[in-house]
Amino acid sequence: MNDPAQPIAPFEAGDPVMEVHRGGKIAVTPKVAVRDRADLALVYTPGVAQICLAIAADPSLAHALTIKRNSVAVVSDGTAVLGLGDIGPAAAMPVMEGKAMLFKDFGGVDAYPICLDEKDPDKLVDAIVALSVGFGGINLEDISAPRCFEIEGKLRQRLDIPVFHDDQHGTAVVTLAALYNAVRVVGKRLEDLAVVISGAGAAGVAITRILQSAGVTDIVVTDSVGIVSSARKGLSAPKQWLAKHTNPRSLDGPVGKAMAGADVFIGVSQPGAITREDVKSMAAGAIVFAMANPVPEVEPEDVEGLVAVYATGRSDLPNQINNVLCFPGIFRGALDVQATEINEEMKLAAARAIADLVTDDELGPELVVPSVFHPVLGATVAARVSAAAIATGVARLPG
Amino acid sequence: MNDPAQPIAPFEAGDPVMEVHRGGKIAVTPKVAVRDRADLALVYTPGVAQICLAIAADPSLAHALTIKRNSVAVVSDGTAVLGLGDIGPAAAMPVMEGKAMLFKDFGGVDAYPICLDEKDPDKLVDAIVALSVGFGGINLEDISAPRCFEIEGKLRQRLDIPVFHDDQHGTAVVTLAALYNAVRVVGKRLEDLAVVISGAGAAGVAITRILQSAGVTDIVVTDSVGIVSSARKGLSAPKQWLAKHTNPRSLDGPVGKAMAGADVFIGVSQPGAITREDVKSMAAGAIVFAMANPVPEVEPEDVEGLVAVYATGRSDLPNQINNVLCFPGIFRGALDVQATEINEEMKLAAARAIADLVTDDELGPELVVPSVFHPVLGATVAARVSAAAIATGVARLPG
Repeated sequence: MNDPAQPIAPFEAGDPVMEVHRGGKIAVTPKVAVRDRADLALVYTPGVAQICLAIAADPSLAHALTIKRNSVAVVSDGTAVLGLGDIGPAAAMPVMEGKAMLFKDFGGVDAYPICLDEKDPDKLVDAIVALSVGFGGINLEDISAPRCFEIEGKLRQRLDIPVFHDDQHGTAVVTLAALYNAVRVVGKRLEDLAVVISGAGAAGVAITRILQSAGVTDIVVTDSVGIVSSARKGLSAPKQWLAKHTNPRSLDGPVGKAMAGADVFIGVSQPGAITREDVKSMAAGAIVFAMANPVPEVEPEDVEGLVAVYATGRSDLPNQINNVLCFPGIFRGALDVQATEINEEMKLAAARAIADLVTDDELGPELVVPSVFHPVLGATVAARVSAAAIATGVARLPG
Repeated sequence: MNDPAQPIAPFEAGDPVMEVHRGGKIAVTPKVAVRDRADLALVYTPGVAQICLAIAADPSLAHALTIKRNSVAVVSDGTAVLGLGDIGPAAAMPVMEGKAMLFKDFGGVDAYPICLDEKDPDKLVDAIVALSVGFGGINLEDISAPRCFEIEGKLRQRLDIPVFHDDQHGTAVVTLAALYNAVRVVGKRLEDLAVVISGAGAAGVAITRILQSAGVTDIVVTDSVGIVSSARKGLSAPKQWLAKHTNPRSLDGPVGKAMAGADVFIGVSQPGAITREDVKSMAAGAIVFAMANPVPEVEPEDVEGLVAVYATGRSDLPNQINNVLCFPGIFRGALDVQATEINEEMKLAAARAIADLVTDDELGPELVVPSVFHPVLGATVAARVSAAAIATGVARLPG
């Protein structure tokens, strides 16, 4: 069985993507050897009983004496996987395994994929709370909006370990990191920017919040209907929040109206969300982050000669804005000080740390974010996140 | 932080049990390297999307293309941990981590500990069903009786992957393995034995069932009150089952009445369950398995000169009857053929495989089970279990 020469429909034998996925991408490995009865008596019965009793007497010892210290559950219900939609929890596993690999490679974090076959938000929350015992953090992934807001909110209330929905907050952190550097390139200040965010889902809401925390005041969010404004009827709860907290100039109508004179466009929606004409109508020194994957909101040829900085989520173009830049370091930093949550200050610190890794010499229109392979990326983000956790009083260890 | 020189109360600095547990005993490791953007594109986006879509179209591909092929969840609610009782899920983690180590070392299985903070059996079942998506098997552990019967039963109905409560079935398999060889030592046949089982909990019930499957007909089970018989009132459901299906001679009264003339005593109860006088009253060629841990039902000095075979659960005495002998190989065998369950025939095959590893030359009163470090133990058990799965039609792969 499991013969490598045997192709697995629908793949050709030797397909490199299939080969790398065969049998899964992660393993569980003992950290100490069990060579004889003496080893067995240390790691298992009877020795292990002392550790169990110590934790029963003082639950805080679980961090030091179990894998809780360094483990994160990568949890998904498979309802919004990549750009593929609701493909279900089994089909989401390869993404979560990939995420677990990146947690280890870039942050030294032991992450384990948990895909849950449960759609009801309350039952999903109950299951995650129940299984959280052995983990030092929960990374939520690819959960559809608006369910993701409720699920994350309830988990944060009930758990004393970090809960982080990467599609929201990871995307927000790396977007802000790129924006910190893009404004350095064009010589503008965050406070002065007029920003258009295309996409009012999980990422759009989270980007709105972090940009506001970072000092941006003029944000207009658009969805498939147009500008999210108080004039619109029947908005969902998250969009009602957006309508109330954004759009200070009370714009209304199609996305084009928001684009006229804008300094920054941030796309977390779909291909074709804006046109070359829309980009042409932006202010001088325009910044366009077209992050829809794999096809951006506006293609490189449609912004040519019109923008100062162009970034996407794609690995084959300059300026890849990728969550891998932040989540391993953020959790590394949170785990290192046993943080009880990942708060706004920790996210801002992560964004600043990522941005600062691009030196003045390197900085330019085609380099506003460091490579995900930057050798000190994870450690740098972690150190700043740990410091922010300590400064805001959410660290259980002194760092 | 995490300074190895810093003692963790209540341990002395350098305590070997503490040192081996510091930071947990298992790690999650990527099976392929991510060195550059090309690697990233294979294991993560965009390459991973092909794998997700393939599994969405044909869910059976999850076994081949994710960790499901080789992964087992070691699940506990912490209600009956070792001999320590209901110490809670956090305090149970060290045991489950140890189990995960043994799964890898002795069976090559990637096992991950999941301790659930949920006491309600139905909610526990729902949570385990929800999280089972990414796993190829569920090993239940240290769940209190009688809840464990209901929980395992419901899980077996709802899941198409093996569900195995090790405290029941693992204990039953290794007990039968030891009994196969003990009767070789004394020259008796299973069909002719009069067996007393002390302990009517999870292990006692499971041992009763497997011995009956193996051909034993005369079994008397005792609990703290005495012989479990139809004459007793107010029996729990599992004990009603025992009363109906055991005790063919309709005995009644204290354990001593069952011991008189018995060929075999199997203890899964507590120290002092039987006396030297009880042992003295057994038939010639008496077999005593006193498996209460760490103190057996009857101490070695109290059986001296009275029994033909004496076995315990202790590692410092001959004949250690230990579940490690079976669970890694059983799951290895089940996973190798993608078995949908671990049925009675597979358990019997495992017991026979373990017993057969003791050669005629080695066999004797002090050697009825092989060492857990026997070099081909896991592979031998696995091969026989796979074959039994195929023979009984529960294998999805041809082996």
